[in-house]
Amino acid sequence: MSRDASEPRGPGRRPAGQDTRGAVLRAAREEFAEKGVDGASMRSIARRAGVDPGTVRHWFANREELVAASVIPRELNPAEQIRILSAPGLTGLGRRIAETVLGAWDEEGGPARFRILVAGLSSTDMHDVLAPILERSVIPTVSDLVPDPDPRRFVLVLNLLGGTLLMRHVFRIEPTASLPLEVLVATVGDAIQRALEDPL
Amino acid sequence: MSRDASEPRGPGRRPAGQDTRGAVLRAAREEFAEKGVDGASMRSIARRAGVDPGTVRHWFANREELVAASVIPRELNPAEQIRILSAPGLTGLGRRIAETVLGAWDEEGGPARFRILVAGLSSTDMHDVLAPILERSVIPTVSDLVPDPDPRRFVLVLNLLGGTLLMRHVFRIEPTASLPLEVLVATVGDAIQRALEDPL
Repeated sequence: MSRDASEPRGPGRRPAGQDTRGAVLRAAREEFAEKGVDGASMRSIARRAGVDPGTVRHWFANREELVAASVIPRELNPAEQIRILSAPGLTGLGRRIAETVLGAWDEEGGPARFRILVAGLSSTDMHDVLAPILERSVIPTVSDLVPDPDPRRFVLVLNLLGGTLLMRHVFRIEPTASLPLEVLVATVGDAIQRALEDPL
Repeated sequence: MSRDASEPRGPGRRPAGQDTRGAVLRAAREEFAEKGVDGASMRSIARRAGVDPGTVRHWFANREELVAASVIPRELNPAEQIRILSAPGLTGLGRRIAETVLGAWDEEGGPARFRILVAGLSSTDMHDVLAPILERSVIPTVSDLVPDPDPRRFVLVLNLLGGTLLMRHVFRIEPTASLPLEVLVATVGDAIQRALEDPL
């Protein structure tokens, strides 16, 4: 939480220096978990965080931004992250992607965040949050490295990652649920690599 | 719905001959969609279906049975189904599994059912419904056909199927969301086959 202390402070009723942005995020996660993404409003989140709605809007321009910040672990910028992962080239890319994505959701609080993300299912918000990230930044960046960027390759890559998180954190089905993270990363990472490179 | 008419009728307030079991299932799906699997009770489902709780229990011994019947399409018996799919042997098994699983959820009402299934996420019920089917019947049956039934193979198979349903019906992320079913079946089916057979 110390990183938030160095960020600019927003307006609101909380004493100066407190981690207002973090408090809004925690309140948002609780609201989404209880009421679903559709059931939670900027206003109800503000109330829970003990700030006024303007403060929430100071940190998060709209609901989509707040949802994204609530469910994406470690406040990564996914577009930036995929550029970093892709920089060394195609060799080993599968494991690098698996380690980053699966590792992030394996952190403390990660499983709960993935469940919030999935709980947004009845809403179009979640699609609006994920689609730009995946369709407009992750896939094009990886496509540049793949000699034959057939869309079917990305079907397999994205579905493997999504399915692994679903089975591990939501359905908790073996053998995925309790496999050590490094075994899971190697297994899923190598399958991603084959999906990117192997003849179709 | 005509198939239900030939099933034994249960007690309750509904006129004889009506599709009581079907009405209970429809009420259960509505309740689960609105309140989540944890929020719905046998009693609230009975009330919505216009029957007494004893009638619900006549058809579904407990909540787990009702949840399973609500989310599994076409009222398949998964243990039986996997035996049928496995009978011709390992050749082509990946596509047969993909066609059955992805095809069933692609039917009318299938996406909504998958969303109900995923919405049960905060509950241990859904784990109790899925774990016995997958861990105790599907995996052992397929294991018998695979020369090297390493658990990592089933990590990939189950996660591919789960992830495909998640991306297609819940997050609706391209390219999975709108790929024709036969292309999806071939792509995911061949990846399943490789996961079952290729050297690890």
